[in-house]
Amino acid sequence: MLQIWALEGIPEVAEGDDLVDLIGRACGDSLRDGDIVVVTSKIVSKAEGRMVAASDREDAITAETVRVVATRESSGHRTRIVQNKLGMVSAAAGVDASNTPEGTILLLPVDPDASARAIAAGLRSRLGVEIGVIVTDTLGRAWREGQTDSAIGAAGVHVFEDLRGQTDAEGRPLVVTMPCVADEIASAADLVKGKASKLPVAVVRGRADLVGPVDLPGARSIVRPLERDMFRLGADEAYADGFAAGARSAASDTA
Amino acid sequence: MLQIWALEGIPEVAEGDDLVDLIGRACGDSLRDGDIVVVTSKIVSKAEGRMVAASDREDAITAETVRVVATRESSGHRTRIVQNKLGMVSAAAGVDASNTPEGTILLLPVDPDASARAIAAGLRSRLGVEIGVIVTDTLGRAWREGQTDSAIGAAGVHVFEDLRGQTDAEGRPLVVTMPCVADEIASAADLVKGKASKLPVAVVRGRADLVGPVDLPGARSIVRPLERDMFRLGADEAYADGFAAGARSAASDTA
Repeated sequence: MLQIWALEGIPEVAEGDDLVDLIGRACGDSLRDGDIVVVTSKIVSKAEGRMVAASDREDAITAETVRVVATRESSGHRTRIVQNKLGMVSAAAGVDASNTPEGTILLLPVDPDASARAIAAGLRSRLGVEIGVIVTDTLGRAWREGQTDSAIGAAGVHVFEDLRGQTDAEGRPLVVTMPCVADEIASAADLVKGKASKLPVAVVRGRADLVGPVDLPGARSIVRPLERDMFRLGADEAYADGFAAGARSAASDTA
Repeated sequence: MLQIWALEGIPEVAEGDDLVDLIGRACGDSLRDGDIVVVTSKIVSKAEGRMVAASDREDAITAETVRVVATRESSGHRTRIVQNKLGMVSAAAGVDASNTPEGTILLLPVDPDASARAIAAGLRSRLGVEIGVIVTDTLGRAWREGQTDSAIGAAGVHVFEDLRGQTDAEGRPLVVTMPCVADEIASAADLVKGKASKLPVAVVRGRADLVGPVDLPGARSIVRPLERDMFRLGADEAYADGFAAGARSAASDTA
């Protein structure tokens, strides 16, 4: 049985706030060894002072961007799918205008894995329980409409279920499948946190087998390396690059 | 509080088996109005007789494919990302060799939304409770390693959370975000079903607000239409198409 609930009593978070203290108070003595605390990146960003003026939105997205993956204009609205400094591919580099004070936007935490490690170590020390921490963001997907919450930071929790050495029910090795349990936990927690509510932290109980040392590989390990990424560029962008190269090649053949 | 558990007592499923009867028996009288029953597509495929000989794997994938999105060869292993008849983009068209009898592979259900509707209507009638049904498959993602379970069929449950008309905690309209709760529920359920176990059905309790008429839009509505899909073709494939077109264009300019 998996149980998931949102923590009540997390106040509005401001720059400099101690998240371990805020989450620790909201938890009281409710946490047990093996629980996983799922924290919306928005409050991590707020505590880290990652708020900037909304008027600087386009510049902020550019500053956060390492590589533009795809751009689409539609009815006057420009969507930029970009890879950010963390390697993550997302719309607008995760720059977010919802649930922020009027006139401001939020950037993602600088290093969500480090944020998760600090929260996990702090909560373990304060509460005396071995918990895992996942920091989440709401991400769009290729090929599918809508968004799901995914893990952008993790500490003290295995982000993949390691099925190596295990067999299926017929006794054959499970080689290809590597469930990204961190993303599944992030998605599960979104079902109780919601988008319109002020419930930025949830607890997932029932997968203590996934909880381990604080320094397990973080969510950075979920990001697919560029050289393995078949969708490292949008179809229109890749076509345009190819077209230009093809035209140059034909021209140099003729010359 | 969200509660998720796997149903014990679902036997090995064979062609022609009545899933409503198998799941209904395993549920006993444990279901309540608003519960969501999450069914691994594998047992739907088995009941529908979608098993073929493993030796026909490549031909089966080709037969299931409407459009090749990307192909990658790596150490003698060819991965085909394709769009299938349902519009879904996935590796190998969802053709699956795990947890199937030796020498066989499974194709996806012909129409998972229809399968979900039949199971939902059957369980509602048999058990007298208004439940939703989601049929799941394990899908890879662009940009991120590993897989998560996603909804490929749905009935009696809203696949998107409708935030239109709602506001964020600052009172501003939530316009862009459209959480795909069906995929989030599929992922959550995978956390109790597992891949190596014989637990193909889970129950999610605590989001009764998402349950409605059996004929709500199904998981087909999650598939992004091609004209809105920035990643409708792999980067290498789009580049190659562009290169050929660029070369032709330069050649005709010269001629």
